[in-house]
Amino acid sequence: MPFESKIKTIEWLGESVKMIDQTKIPYSFETIELTKCEEVAEAIKVMIVRGAPAIGIAGAHGVTLAAIELSKKEKDKKTFLLKLKERAEFLKSTRPTAVNLMWAVDKQIEAAESYGGDDIDGVVEVLKKNGVMLENQDVEINKKIGDFGAAIIPEGATILTHCNAGALATVGYGTALGVVRSAYAKDNTIRVFADETRPRQQGARLTTFELIEDGIPTTLITDGMCGYFMKNHMIDVVVVGADRIAANGDTANKIGTYTVALVAKAHNIPFYIAAPLSTIDISIKNGDEIPIEERGREEVTHINGKTICHPDVNIINPAFDVTPNEYISGIITEVGILRPDYKNSIADAMKKM
Amino acid sequence: MPFESKIKTIEWLGESVKMIDQTKIPYSFETIELTKCEEVAEAIKVMIVRGAPAIGIAGAHGVTLAAIELSKKEKDKKTFLLKLKERAEFLKSTRPTAVNLMWAVDKQIEAAESYGGDDIDGVVEVLKKNGVMLENQDVEINKKIGDFGAAIIPEGATILTHCNAGALATVGYGTALGVVRSAYAKDNTIRVFADETRPRQQGARLTTFELIEDGIPTTLITDGMCGYFMKNHMIDVVVVGADRIAANGDTANKIGTYTVALVAKAHNIPFYIAAPLSTIDISIKNGDEIPIEERGREEVTHINGKTICHPDVNIINPAFDVTPNEYISGIITEVGILRPDYKNSIADAMKKM
Repeated sequence: MPFESKIKTIEWLGESVKMIDQTKIPYSFETIELTKCEEVAEAIKVMIVRGAPAIGIAGAHGVTLAAIELSKKEKDKKTFLLKLKERAEFLKSTRPTAVNLMWAVDKQIEAAESYGGDDIDGVVEVLKKNGVMLENQDVEINKKIGDFGAAIIPEGATILTHCNAGALATVGYGTALGVVRSAYAKDNTIRVFADETRPRQQGARLTTFELIEDGIPTTLITDGMCGYFMKNHMIDVVVVGADRIAANGDTANKIGTYTVALVAKAHNIPFYIAAPLSTIDISIKNGDEIPIEERGREEVTHINGKTICHPDVNIINPAFDVTPNEYISGIITEVGILRPDYKNSIADAMKKM
Repeated sequence: MPFESKIKTIEWLGESVKMIDQTKIPYSFETIELTKCEEVAEAIKVMIVRGAPAIGIAGAHGVTLAAIELSKKEKDKKTFLLKLKERAEFLKSTRPTAVNLMWAVDKQIEAAESYGGDDIDGVVEVLKKNGVMLENQDVEINKKIGDFGAAIIPEGATILTHCNAGALATVGYGTALGVVRSAYAKDNTIRVFADETRPRQQGARLTTFELIEDGIPTTLITDGMCGYFMKNHMIDVVVVGADRIAANGDTANKIGTYTVALVAKAHNIPFYIAAPLSTIDISIKNGDEIPIEERGREEVTHINGKTICHPDVNIINPAFDVTPNEYISGIITEVGILRPDYKNSIADAMKKM
């Protein structure tokens, strides 16, 4: 059985949520079980769970946990819903860039508000069911993305990917790595280059882990090497995930993505985004409006707890960058591959959501 | 007294050579003293000493140490010179890309051969003197590079540099960081961005160390971040060193340099090489002919002795890449700034060497 089918990155257990602790990979493979909304928020902040689709589902289950907690104290449904919305806003504030978190939390609030009955327990049941539905839907969506995406991978191609947009970034299967999995199922001569993705090394730690465990041949490169390998015709196509896509196709993704996109363009190598429609934020016109999270200095100055530089050095640590639409060959979604002009193709696709 | 004047990266002590052990920085600042040619070769291989100009001087002193050893066994000058040349070839083979090593070792062999006397001790004395001359000359050359280069740094500019082309990559002062030092002496509002330079992190470990110790404000960024900061107008100019420059200006430098050059070009940010004329290899037409050293997998898979990825991942670890001349705004040398057409400007400059 392939690795990605053996594990679930995030799973609702009935009264609690189970997550793989991704800060421990590749050193150990551990899961944690959370019963409080606060704990879920903290798990998102410290990146025990990460990857735009996965933190969306974490947020959804976080709302359910908040509802369970509130249902033990609140008797009045209006007050209950008001407090639930406060907890929802708190969950949404944990990471500002990935829009899937806002989308999934809002989906839960919509479900809670649309429940007709007066009983609070009924709302809790609705949230549990809706959360599980979103969880299952995520894997189905990724398999569709994988199948559409496999069509753009040439025979025997070497695919470069950045960060981890894999099973570990979603409930399962993955977006960019879903494309890899579907392509590899058809053609086992394809190869993957995973770049390290400093500062947090999701490419080295997570992408090599899940691909090698699934028997897909993978080469780890450092982030600066992409130019060398592209110039030497050793990379045929780039596929990465996304944290937020604007209405015009501009795409926020893990820091370093824009650099890869520029280098791919200079070598005429196609550069694809793979993401569910829930990553698209139709409310913003372009990438300039996407908030970019800044994270702490230790992510840059320390690796495995040990410093790598002069202690007094200055640090700026943006967690994401924005790749303008002109560098994107296509956006692989669950309803097909969107092509330029993205303003039109995205608007059309959103009607199918 | 500035840090760069307090230390000497490599220093001839009369019968031995002293080097800063650069594998220990920033954790500790230690020097080692070597008395054998073999030890110098090993120090170059494991990068106790690194940086094209510094390994050139290490190679020169390595020849002297070989001569001292041989002078104790050989009585015939012809046999002595033959064996000395064998040791010289061995020294030159330790690292294939940086041409300064070949240049400096050859300078020593020329000096040995041009000695008119019959006595072997006389040859040893010539090598000692010539090695010290090359050592002192290196600092003088770097100060000239610094002064020419300072002219191209705009007031208050932020300079991005890659790897370490500093005091630690030379006998002292530095090439790219020589430009930074000369510019900072004139205008203390300039700022430096040092990229980490994985796999061996010379930017993080060495560049932040020597610049912060000298009080020059420095920000450490990861290698993938250059696109983000250039797009956001936070970098004004790029200055890097070189390991070998072809007759047409194509330049081999630490892996990742070409990626930075492409990204700079896309944002119309000037990209300069700073290097002594001894880095120019007039015997090769273009960058395709520069041999690129491949190093071991542990440089990529491990940081500070701890793995960062799945143990079975494939690794390709080229230590250098080649930036084509069209991406280079100028080559800052000790005889001035060379501009395109490089074939002509380089040929002219080499006449002044």
